Amino acid sequence: MTIVLKPIGYVSAQDQQSDGILRPSSQGRIHLDPQYREGLSGLSAGMPVQVLFHFHLSDGYALTTLSRKSQVMTGVFNTHSPQRPNGIGETIVRIDSIEGGEIAYTGGDMLDGTPVLDIKPWNPSLGNIKA
Amino acid sequence: MTIVLKPIGYVSAQDQQSDGILRPSSQGRIHLDPQYREGLSGLSAGMPVQVLFHFHLSDGYALTTLSRKSQVMTGVFNTHSPQRPNGIGETIVRIDSIEGGEIAYTGGDMLDGTPVLDIKPWNPSLGNIKA
Repeated sequence: MTIVLKPIGYVSAQDQQSDGILRPSSQGRIHLDPQYREGLSGLSAGMPVQVLFHFHLSDGYALTTLSRKSQVMTGVFNTHSPQRPNGIGETIVRIDSIEGGEIAYTGGDMLDGTPVLDIKPWNPSLGNIKA
Repeated sequence: MTIVLKPIGYVSAQDQQSDGILRPSSQGRIHLDPQYREGLSGLSAGMPVQVLFHFHLSDGYALTTLSRKSQVMTGVFNTHSPQRPNGIGETIVRIDSIEGGEIAYTGGDMLDGTPVLDIKPWNPSLGNIKA
């Protein structure tokens, strides 16, 4: 079984480079494909949203990797490594403005050129376990 | 451009049925494909994790949909509707136990048979905007 996704848009941002590593800037823009623009209705400046995206610069994966936090080897599902079996990233950003299909945002960790897969409304209470 | 994903495992759960609608139960199990088992190292009982999954029962999408909360039509990216351009869901669960490649969990909203795409460690502070 395979699942085929198509980006709904792309990120433009001014990546920072330090020690030869690309780092996301704290602001960027999502350029939504015009066919999906209607799907933004109801979203507005100030709202936090969750963005799902493709780790487009990552190739392949490793099942264990060095944890940046603890500096020991750990399972990939215990990390946010971009080298994972399905290269999907998740990040929370705040909408600064929406003009047409262009969303200016603050926050998150997406690099320039990142393919965007989904946008969902976010409320911090969603981060709690519901049981 | 297309992105092809392959499930890393599947959910088993006792769905509840009411008014002809399937609803997720508050507990379930993720059965990880054996080839990915090593990726779980470092995860343990009590930890919250974020699970990305495929809305396998959804077919197609609508760009606007009825908001369950406000009962008005709104853009799909302002809702958690399973009928979305890329049918990916996201949910937070708490690990109750891990035995081999089987994760028992509490919380979340995945139905029986749901294909699991990714597991990431979750800390409530991740839900804040970093800028």
